[in-house]
Amino acid sequence: MSEGWFMHVDKFLDNLRLRNELIRQFCAELLGTFMLVLIGDGAIAQMKFFGGTGTGAGFLNVNIGYSFGLMLGVYFTASVSGGHLNPAVSLAFCTLGKLKWLAFPVYMLAQFIGAFLAAAMVFAVYYDSIDKEDHNRTVVLPTSTAGIFATYPTPGLSWGVGFVDQLLGTALLMGGIMAVTDSKNSKPPSGLEPIFVALTFFAVGISFGYNFGYGINPARDFGPRVFTALAGYGSDVWTQAGVHWWIIPTFVPFLGAPIGAWVYYLGIGMHCESAYKRHEDNAQLLESQPSMTEDK
Amino acid sequence: MSEGWFMHVDKFLDNLRLRNELIRQFCAELLGTFMLVLIGDGAIAQMKFFGGTGTGAGFLNVNIGYSFGLMLGVYFTASVSGGHLNPAVSLAFCTLGKLKWLAFPVYMLAQFIGAFLAAAMVFAVYYDSIDKEDHNRTVVLPTSTAGIFATYPTPGLSWGVGFVDQLLGTALLMGGIMAVTDSKNSKPPSGLEPIFVALTFFAVGISFGYNFGYGINPARDFGPRVFTALAGYGSDVWTQAGVHWWIIPTFVPFLGAPIGAWVYYLGIGMHCESAYKRHEDNAQLLESQPSMTEDK
Amino acid sequence: MSEGWFMHVDKFLDNLRLRNELIRQFCAELLGTFMLVLIGDGAIAQMKFFGGTGTGAGFLNVNIGYSFGLMLGVYFTASVSGGHLNPAVSLAFCTLGKLKWLAFPVYMLAQFIGAFLAAAMVFAVYYDSIDKEDHNRTVVLPTSTAGIFATYPTPGLSWGVGFVDQLLGTALLMGGIMAVTDSKNSKPPSGLEPIFVALTFFAVGISFGYNFGYGINPARDFGPRVFTALAGYGSDVWTQAGVHWWIIPTFVPFLGAPIGAWVYYLGIGMHCESAYKRHEDNAQLLESQPSMTEDK
Amino acid sequence: MSEGWFMHVDKFLDNLRLRNELIRQFCAELLGTFMLVLIGDGAIAQMKFFGGTGTGAGFLNVNIGYSFGLMLGVYFTASVSGGHLNPAVSLAFCTLGKLKWLAFPVYMLAQFIGAFLAAAMVFAVYYDSIDKEDHNRTVVLPTSTAGIFATYPTPGLSWGVGFVDQLLGTALLMGGIMAVTDSKNSKPPSGLEPIFVALTFFAVGISFGYNFGYGINPARDFGPRVFTALAGYGSDVWTQAGVHWWIIPTFVPFLGAPIGAWVYYLGIGMHCESAYKRHEDNAQLLESQPSMTEDK
Repeated sequence: MSEGWFMHVDKFLDNLRLRNELIRQFCAELLGTFMLVLIGDGAIAQMKFFGGTGTGAGFLNVNIGYSFGLMLGVYFTASVSGGHLNPAVSLAFCTLGKLKWLAFPVYMLAQFIGAFLAAAMVFAVYYDSIDKEDHNRTVVLPTSTAGIFATYPTPGLSWGVGFVDQLLGTALLMGGIMAVTDSKNSKPPSGLEPIFVALTFFAVGISFGYNFGYGINPARDFGPRVFTALAGYGSDVWTQAGVHWWIIPTFVPFLGAPIGAWVYYLGIGMHCESAYKRHEDNAQLLESQPSMTEDK
Repeated sequence: MSEGWFMHVDKFLDNLRLRNELIRQFCAELLGTFMLVLIGDGAIAQMKFFGGTGTGAGFLNVNIGYSFGLMLGVYFTASVSGGHLNPAVSLAFCTLGKLKWLAFPVYMLAQFIGAFLAAAMVFAVYYDSIDKEDHNRTVVLPTSTAGIFATYPTPGLSWGVGFVDQLLGTALLMGGIMAVTDSKNSKPPSGLEPIFVALTFFAVGISFGYNFGYGINPARDFGPRVFTALAGYGSDVWTQAGVHWWIIPTFVPFLGAPIGAWVYYLGIGMHCESAYKRHEDNAQLLESQPSMTEDK
Repeated sequence: MSEGWFMHVDKFLDNLRLRNELIRQFCAELLGTFMLVLIGDGAIAQMKFFGGTGTGAGFLNVNIGYSFGLMLGVYFTASVSGGHLNPAVSLAFCTLGKLKWLAFPVYMLAQFIGAFLAAAMVFAVYYDSIDKEDHNRTVVLPTSTAGIFATYPTPGLSWGVGFVDQLLGTALLMGGIMAVTDSKNSKPPSGLEPIFVALTFFAVGISFGYNFGYGINPARDFGPRVFTALAGYGSDVWTQAGVHWWIIPTFVPFLGAPIGAWVYYLGIGMHCESAYKRHEDNAQLLESQPSMTEDK
Repeated sequence: MSEGWFMHVDKFLDNLRLRNELIRQFCAELLGTFMLVLIGDGAIAQMKFFGGTGTGAGFLNVNIGYSFGLMLGVYFTASVSGGHLNPAVSLAFCTLGKLKWLAFPVYMLAQFIGAFLAAAMVFAVYYDSIDKEDHNRTVVLPTSTAGIFATYPTPGLSWGVGFVDQLLGTALLMGGIMAVTDSKNSKPPSGLEPIFVALTFFAVGISFGYNFGYGINPARDFGPRVFTALAGYGSDVWTQAGVHWWIIPTFVPFLGAPIGAWVYYLGIGMHCESAYKRHEDNAQLLESQPSMTEDK
């Protein structure tokens, strides 16, 4: 279908094709995480500014924004880097022997840079409104806009609950990723995994987004936080009310994701394998209608 | 793809693989029901606490939470236990000869334990907010938090309507499960059944969630209710306004689910079978364009 | 998988299998339309009563309820009757030669009975709330509950706009059904048509549900309207403000659906056929990446 | 399945089949864009008038309306014209050698006409309400209805932000279209691309719909704007507050879409190709369970 002239352009581009797998993965994870945070933080900004004028946008929008952003980011990157877009997920795959430990820092760096750049882009697109509503770049006032970029806890949250919240959220996300991509279990058709990973993310957000605004992704949280620190919000982004809350969404996911991965693997995944033959028998159990013929 | 070191780990784990099918099913149903109730009750908690601060979350969120929780729970367990996550559904499958009667108490026990543990986890993650808003653990006040865990009827509900409500809700759910998993009818592609089971659940919730908050699952309702009784909410969880309402969502679904299953089977399912050959002719009816070629 | 005892039950049921195609189709359309209206009108009732207590449910819920009800109804009936659930859709298929004219009155009768019975069931399940809020069964007051069952126009609507509204809504619905089930065009995978038919219905509801509450289905509107007339709402259900508005949602869809079907067929469908060979070339157009290899 | 009499009708219609590809594409793009704008602008109208009476419809509805309209429009046209429905998308495909430059003005003209006609239809269906609420056809008052048809910026928007907003929005849309239709990457199953293109559109709307109401489609914006100018809204539709804002949503997308297409192609798409063999290895990475067998 391609026009002739394009073939010449493409032939020229051939020289630019990345031969190194790790560089390709770096580019993909950077661009994918950029998409995730761009659409997610954009949805938070839109909720905040629409909310101010009462046009009907709530936390549901944030769930939708982050989920669709994740879906798009995974479609962008799945065949090149596996579509992690989250260093905690990358770490969990390392512990399962599915990603080389050597690739982990490359993935993590790309994810942080992508999230940082996305925060800068959201800042630019919403610059007019941010400047009007929060001219002094504050963190804890009702008019503050720092919450567009990074997560801050609900007032009155205790360290214990904050810890459990992020641990559980990341474990759920990783467990769900395992389940909907496990070809030994009953998974969605090939090519639809990204939407189900996104629905898992949505499920965590609609259940456990209250305490911490569901970071459950160190890159998504830390990258934009660094950006806000540089963009004039000052040191408050690190020490809200004197407490270093940023530690929890930045480090706890690295514990939660591997736990979720291994709970799934030890509790279900590894038994599916030995249960593999039975799997086909069970397929009939999903077909609910009894039938004479299969018993004859 | 697996790294070499992981092969050694996995070889060691081989000894832990569950050889007994019923134990595997027990583990799967427990973990799956845990997921369902964790995400569902988490969504109720989030709606309650967000609602208090007016950030826009309504009953729609509960529908989304329970549906996505069910979807994830079924993806976790479909190939091991069939993904029932509901003793009424298990019973209905028993009456259709698709689950051994012997397995029924094992499934039911696992589902109750899973739901109980999920309630405890939701209690932990939302402990700060529960303690702040409802320090005395009450059941019927506007600030009460018992409704996060188990269902309580709308004030003024009569026994008759309560009975019909749960009967109809469970029958609809089970009828829908039959329809979207019936390979003799026009069902979704293999691997997508869980999302359509979830949408069925959603449909029941958006239509008949008003009277009773749509329990339609004895494990989802009774397990967390026992937890709240133990966690300080006291005997009010059993006798709200002096009436033992808990009986309805705990027992009526065991009647409703088999009714839904058999209405579908007697009204549609068993005729699909004799209509099987016709099915392929009808496929063309779905293709709405007439064509000369097929008539020549 | 079926247990031995069930085989004996099923063998006995064999005698009850419907040998007559038209009777099977009658049963299927009745049950399918029952599902559609049960879930749809249930959602309207839930919106109405939740709305009264301010727990956040709006017209979006009605769209979701009717769409999911349609999806479930179509999954119930697709392989037996084609899943019309709407006499206007049945008529349109007749004009395309895809349904025998003889079957049309059978389909229509089944659809009306199914919708009537569903209205009665919704009345029973919501009896407590209807009796409390609208004890005298009124039609036009703010507390009226007649709008749960049948559609009534927005105050101030003119006949001309009412006519165009229902004509356009039904044409859009039927055009969408044609597009997403046309195997000569780019349709969804087999088994997923029902969800896309439902999304089409949703699209009409979110765009053109304001004037008339989107009946666009004579059975869904007329059956429940007859029920309300019998259930104590009186003659007001026919002559709201002295005008026989019920004529529009009852008769105009029979004009709109065939128009939608033929606009699609004349404008797109019949040209797809002659364009069929080109279709495969165009598939590559959807694959947006140019490639050297395919041009060699 | 077709009845005999229909065969004669269809044989007659055979003479009307369009032999010219470009004319078929013109018809398809016109009808598809008509669907898109009809449902999208209808959703805006419904939000506006429901909002006035407080029945719960917000900007989320606009996102849903435009996304579902796009989905339907693409299903209508995908196999005939590729389903662009947006001149900026058509231009981007031209720069990639996937659409002949000669076809571009034909596509663009069809898209403008379709959008214009859709605006007229929405005006007709909502004529009663428009006439009641905005009898003088105004553009900038709270009761104005010009915003149903074309986009107007949030008050206080600067030229720079407006430019970046439309540039980014269109680039995101086009990048997403590339990703979910790229058969060399991990794309959705064939026949499901339209829903994912629609979800991409939704994602842009939920994140970047605040500043400009997400036009990101010159036909969708300019066609209805011309209609409003002719329908009595006067010259204010061009010079809101003395500034020619219409220039941005009309021209900037032609820059944004090609940028999005090429960022995807240069950053990911063209490396997928050289990474094609690796793609199959990576498929296993998505299957998260390690396995002994594949290493033996």
